[in-house]
Amino acid sequence: MSKGNLLSVREDVRVLDATLRDGGLCNDFFFDDKFVNDLYHANIGAGVDYMEFGYKADKNIFSPEKFGKWKFCDDEDIREVVGENNTPMKIAVMADVGRTDYKRDIHPKAESPVDMVRVATYINTIPAALDIIEHCAKMGYETAINIMAISKERTEDIREALEIFGKSPVNIFYLVDSYGAFYPEQIRRFSQMYLEYADKYGKQVGVHAHDNQSLAFANTIDALQEGVSFLDVTALGLGRGAGNCRSELLVGFLKNPKYRTEPLYNHIEKYYQKFKDDGILWGFDVPYIITGQRNSHPRSAIAFQKAHRTDYTNFFYELMDMD
Amino acid sequence: MSKGNLLSVREDVRVLDATLRDGGLCNDFFFDDKFVNDLYHANIGAGVDYMEFGYKADKNIFSPEKFGKWKFCDDEDIREVVGENNTPMKIAVMADVGRTDYKRDIHPKAESPVDMVRVATYINTIPAALDIIEHCAKMGYETAINIMAISKERTEDIREALEIFGKSPVNIFYLVDSYGAFYPEQIRRFSQMYLEYADKYGKQVGVHAHDNQSLAFANTIDALQEGVSFLDVTALGLGRGAGNCRSELLVGFLKNPKYRTEPLYNHIEKYYQKFKDDGILWGFDVPYIITGQRNSHPRSAIAFQKAHRTDYTNFFYELMDMD
Repeated sequence: MSKGNLLSVREDVRVLDATLRDGGLCNDFFFDDKFVNDLYHANIGAGVDYMEFGYKADKNIFSPEKFGKWKFCDDEDIREVVGENNTPMKIAVMADVGRTDYKRDIHPKAESPVDMVRVATYINTIPAALDIIEHCAKMGYETAINIMAISKERTEDIREALEIFGKSPVNIFYLVDSYGAFYPEQIRRFSQMYLEYADKYGKQVGVHAHDNQSLAFANTIDALQEGVSFLDVTALGLGRGAGNCRSELLVGFLKNPKYRTEPLYNHIEKYYQKFKDDGILWGFDVPYIITGQRNSHPRSAIAFQKAHRTDYTNFFYELMDMD
Repeated sequence: MSKGNLLSVREDVRVLDATLRDGGLCNDFFFDDKFVNDLYHANIGAGVDYMEFGYKADKNIFSPEKFGKWKFCDDEDIREVVGENNTPMKIAVMADVGRTDYKRDIHPKAESPVDMVRVATYINTIPAALDIIEHCAKMGYETAINIMAISKERTEDIREALEIFGKSPVNIFYLVDSYGAFYPEQIRRFSQMYLEYADKYGKQVGVHAHDNQSLAFANTIDALQEGVSFLDVTALGLGRGAGNCRSELLVGFLKNPKYRTEPLYNHIEKYYQKFKDDGILWGFDVPYIITGQRNSHPRSAIAFQKAHRTDYTNFFYELMDMD
């Protein structure tokens, strides 16, 4: 059953901008301060509800010389951009299971500009993800659990995961289409499944789509129609591989008058052509169709793009040979 | 109610390649013969069911010096590519109301390589469209009626049009999203409406989507799920403005083993980068989002792209000022 319609406002909707976090995967998080400041103000102007700054990665695993500061999201670096963040927009960061020293690096909320920690996990690392969720909840943060790569997981295992997280202090279940493999019909079905457990345990549901098959926006608004509340976007779709649902598409679609696209266009026209000129690679293109349709990790398509290859037929047969 | 599912074959499906016809709007139909031949063979290899060669335009209105031959689709020009077309793929052409001398230029089917004539009309030129349909049906062709720009028309007028065409000899009602303005939820609703009249009068339904909001593929497969049979595509989405649903996306999605993407990739990698290098402009980009979200004709976005402008914010305000 459809929740809301094309003319009205759904008060539960929250738009989360993940440009720095997912986009950082395209340039090792080397964004300059001017850009980050401009994005922050564009998001506020556009009515975006959450802005994710990056990862809380462990500096013992990843060298701060090889990655920009948004790989680590130190509180003081965020504070430099947002000050006390006296705005309606909340701040999010992501913690990756196995790649974060959360007990050392995630401090009490009262000392931090961060409002929400999103925990990214595979289905076989749930106990480790639960530890992070519990720590962050105890520290006073809102929390979300992003179970990745579910297009490769069994439905009954996903259900079991939702049961487990249902009993945890997590606030939001995120439906994540890591491989850009889901069709709208599947996103609608999975949204219903996630909402079933969310309703049972008093959680909310979010969606994080990828554009491998040019379906990121369609899948996002179809999930919204089913009742999903948290909607991930990035400006101009900046994000790993084929990229994400575009902020400008979603913000222009939503009917709440607090959402406005002009600040996003103003931001986009200033920075993103230069990203492309500088060789940062992202966005929907043929090789992502080929991996998306096969429900494969996009890494081979990313390598194809980086090599400036255009022999799509060879790529198609190479992937076929890997199976 | 969903017809078919993601694992099985829908025997009623027909893929129609409109690359030359819709793509011709981007280069005034100046395709070279080698390209057209390669596209023809790629489509056959891919299992495409119909290939549309172009328009049957009136040479008294459009000068053959200003347009390539696929603006006119003389039988002998098609014959040069397809011979007797002893293949499972049928040949289509389009006739535009008011721009075709169909009585002079559309000859009996027995003398022509063409199998289907698609008639494009606005809702206020239905009687003229009916004349063309009746002529073509009498000449022995399959016929389709493409009512354009329906995102700007009243539902009750569209219903009345479908009643009128229901009583005509036309075979297929085409749901056409000229402005790329429809969301999947609307495409599903309109598909049901078109199917209601198709069932009543023994017709079939087709869908022709545009990618202004990055929804062409999503809208096409959602229409398919509702029961729409004829699905328009173009290679790499080549078509006016934001372009069309991509052949490679749809053909890779369909489960009938007769459909294969490799011949399309082989064709695409040979020609389309050169089209881009030659300055042929098409494909999803920011200005089409802005016209699509406003349910406006894409002509202003096309002009914006041709001028190589990137000041999206100004464009947004210019359009606002026109209303």
